[in-house]
Amino acid sequence: MSTDEVVLLDFWVSPFCLRAKIALAEKGVAFVEQEEDLFGGKSELLLKSNPVYQKVPVLLHNGKPMCESTIIVHYIDETWPSPPLLPTCPYERARARFWADFIDKKVFEAGGKTWQSKGEEKEVAKKEFLEILKVLEGALGEKDYFGGDSFGFVDIIAIPLTSWFDSCEKFGLFKIEEHCPKFSAWMKRCLKRETVAKVLPNPEKVLEFVTSMRKMHGVE
Amino acid sequence: MSTDEVVLLDFWVSPFCLRAKIALAEKGVAFVEQEEDLFGGKSELLLKSNPVYQKVPVLLHNGKPMCESTIIVHYIDETWPSPPLLPTCPYERARARFWADFIDKKVFEAGGKTWQSKGEEKEVAKKEFLEILKVLEGALGEKDYFGGDSFGFVDIIAIPLTSWFDSCEKFGLFKIEEHCPKFSAWMKRCLKRETVAKVLPNPEKVLEFVTSMRKMHGVE
Repeated sequence: MSTDEVVLLDFWVSPFCLRAKIALAEKGVAFVEQEEDLFGGKSELLLKSNPVYQKVPVLLHNGKPMCESTIIVHYIDETWPSPPLLPTCPYERARARFWADFIDKKVFEAGGKTWQSKGEEKEVAKKEFLEILKVLEGALGEKDYFGGDSFGFVDIIAIPLTSWFDSCEKFGLFKIEEHCPKFSAWMKRCLKRETVAKVLPNPEKVLEFVTSMRKMHGVE
Repeated sequence: MSTDEVVLLDFWVSPFCLRAKIALAEKGVAFVEQEEDLFGGKSELLLKSNPVYQKVPVLLHNGKPMCESTIIVHYIDETWPSPPLLPTCPYERARARFWADFIDKKVFEAGGKTWQSKGEEKEVAKKEFLEILKVLEGALGEKDYFGGDSFGFVDIIAIPLTSWFDSCEKFGLFKIEEHCPKFSAWMKRCLKRETVAKVLPNPEKVLEFVTSMRKMHGVE
């Protein structure tokens, strides 16, 4: 394992890159972060490694590139099996994949609308975003983590997205905790975990970034 | 295995349901198709089994429901391992998942636009659709199937969508073969396979269905 070369083409505030970083940390795999300048100019390595989307994250394992964060987390789980992230039972695996897919399809886009919109549109965005979180709160139920007693696949897919939630709340004028107390408790529980705490960006830095994005989108 | 009860909540023309049917046929798993009346009224079983999306396909294995076609194909592959659909090597698995995900995100929606649009919009739709197929043709390269020499995971994800391509060509006024000869050859190769041929709907029936959808969308 010591001869493995693991490189992550990264962008510090991307929740999708954070998924790979948490999964690698959970497995105890050392890796090199290579920060991309997404606004200035993407590296040749990124363009060559992900010609279809030209997006981060890309994980290069001994030079072989993998794209799309959920697929990267699958790869990490299959390449370094201990500790397992996905459950063993096919039915539980299908359920984990279902929620990961739901999160992929819904959360980032709906969250974005809460800080990209104004007036009536913002109200609609806020309502839709909270509805999505309520569905996730239902999936969580009384469990500590999405998969049960231990931190796993769905938690890794979901928790990085919450690093933008402070910004959603600030610009959207709402408090997630008031609507989704169990989901909020899950967030706090995950944030105490070392593999999460050490990689999630400072919420104030995210807020600065989101503020600049709002200017770019012409919201401010 | 003989005590397994496998039920598919189905809609005859859905390419997503076809994925599950082909995967089950590849594994030699007997199952019961339960046709849903998507326009008249969905069954209680569908609403209960897929409360989030209320969509087909749903696979019920000994009463346990699985949703989302690509996740269902994963489940089938993990539950009945022989013959394998996904490759064994984690890197090849990641590549297969990447293309399955690309197909999921792009093909059905882009294909739909070719028969749902008119005039200038149709020209744009046609161009976009063919660009997507060209990317897939590039992924296929000189191989017989997406995974190499044998029919597998990505083929199962992709081939059902082609049952609507006759309709795309007819209403979009183009011929896929003229733009993507290798992709066309792959389609023909797959259509000769028994597990595919026996479940894919008659293109004329699909055309009738698409014609009625065009009326519903106000295109005709």
